[in-house]
Amino acid sequence: MNKEIEALKIVKIGGNIIDNDLLLNSFLANFSKLNGHKILVHGGGKLATKLAEKTGVEVIMIDGRRVTNSETLEIITMVYAGKINKNIVAKLQGFHCNAIGFSGADGNTVVSKKRPIIEVDYGFVGDVESVNTKTLELLLNNQIFPVFCAITHDKKGQLLNTNADTIASELAIAFAKRYTTELYYCFEKNGVLKNINEDDSVIEHINHENYQGLIDQKIIANGMLPKLNNCFHAIQHQVSKVCIGKPSMLFEKGIKHTTIQK
Amino acid sequence: MNKEIEALKIVKIGGNIIDNDLLLNSFLANFSKLNGHKILVHGGGKLATKLAEKTGVEVIMIDGRRVTNSETLEIITMVYAGKINKNIVAKLQGFHCNAIGFSGADGNTVVSKKRPIIEVDYGFVGDVESVNTKTLELLLNNQIFPVFCAITHDKKGQLLNTNADTIASELAIAFAKRYTTELYYCFEKNGVLKNINEDDSVIEHINHENYQGLIDQKIIANGMLPKLNNCFHAIQHQVSKVCIGKPSMLFEKGIKHTTIQK
Repeated sequence: MNKEIEALKIVKIGGNIIDNDLLLNSFLANFSKLNGHKILVHGGGKLATKLAEKTGVEVIMIDGRRVTNSETLEIITMVYAGKINKNIVAKLQGFHCNAIGFSGADGNTVVSKKRPIIEVDYGFVGDVESVNTKTLELLLNNQIFPVFCAITHDKKGQLLNTNADTIASELAIAFAKRYTTELYYCFEKNGVLKNINEDDSVIEHINHENYQGLIDQKIIANGMLPKLNNCFHAIQHQVSKVCIGKPSMLFEKGIKHTTIQK
Repeated sequence: MNKEIEALKIVKIGGNIIDNDLLLNSFLANFSKLNGHKILVHGGGKLATKLAEKTGVEVIMIDGRRVTNSETLEIITMVYAGKINKNIVAKLQGFHCNAIGFSGADGNTVVSKKRPIIEVDYGFVGDVESVNTKTLELLLNNQIFPVFCAITHDKKGQLLNTNADTIASELAIAFAKRYTTELYYCFEKNGVLKNINEDDSVIEHINHENYQGLIDQKIIANGMLPKLNNCFHAIQHQVSKVCIGKPSMLFEKGIKHTTIQK
């Protein structure tokens, strides 16, 4: 296999696209036209919380993080792997993109380990241990495009809840050995912003030199911190390109976004 | 490909196995050890009805058949493609069987057409139009085993609810051109029974000659009628063997069951 010609784009979309039918349709129409190998990773959006409320499952948060007890895992599995994943796959098929839905259990693609209890028990949350690319490569080489939800397994029969950003970066790192791999985190903003209220204030390049400064100035905080950690993790492990921005950065030229550099 | 050596078993399991953790685990442990190519098809069980009740979705039945409105389709997608399918896949992985979950939308494997409204509008119910075996063969030839839930799509972006027995027979017919294909319908009885209260009263062979008589005597009635129609449909379209009985018919020798003959 020639790394020069085999390129792979891994694209992660989050709740703001998933929760909006118009945005999702437009994104999927564009994604279906992307040339070359591609893998889509999706988060969960607000649907899981809504279903938890409807069915009377209590949402337990510790330090702002959701605890995944068995009832929550059941809801997440239904919403992420069922409703969201299958609807995305069906829509992509409607756009003539031969998609196939995946959790990490399917084809044993993403194996994780239940997070050990250190002070806090997060429940059925899995930290990625290994990614097996063989089945995915087989499909990609036949123009079949995997669509991942944020669920993994422990190879012992247990499904586990795993962060979608992390799944995207771990997939990218695993594939970087085989393809020229690019990782795109799509969300509602143009990238990492200097001023959160000004969508034009995009920081176009983040590297190790300016990163700590951005944290110290609280420009990078809260949810952006783990996202950036995933970005740096990927760029330090042979992933060719890591970008954060609106989906249009993938489909149009000259769209401002943030690029993570070593 | 040599039809003599390439054999495929398609196994359908229903609610009585899915709703019982012990039965399901035992079935999956045995299924994982089955030699040769294999595909599992599962029904839905009582979980979808339970979730409909919990979330206040009304179950509408016409002539004993469930109407699939958009809310019901959402529940079915969550339960069948999410909870049941992913748990089966994870459990099979735990038994070292490299399983991969499928709806008919995944890999565009089962395309169906929304049932036309003739007197009754069944809603989002799909009648199978075509089965594409290419992706499935690619996986089978790499010892990766598909697990199908009872959901298909119309290739225009719409998921549809399709009977699991029908999906199993349509898959078997499509594969009969490529492999020596056997179709097994597993349920809670030893097969078609002469006397429904006597589990030993198995009718070991049903063919076109004794079929009408069994219907006239009401030995075959209600839910068994469409199941038998699926069986005859398969055996008339090059499927090598069609059996109805307990799962043990697959795993042990000499277990009584019903075999459908031309």
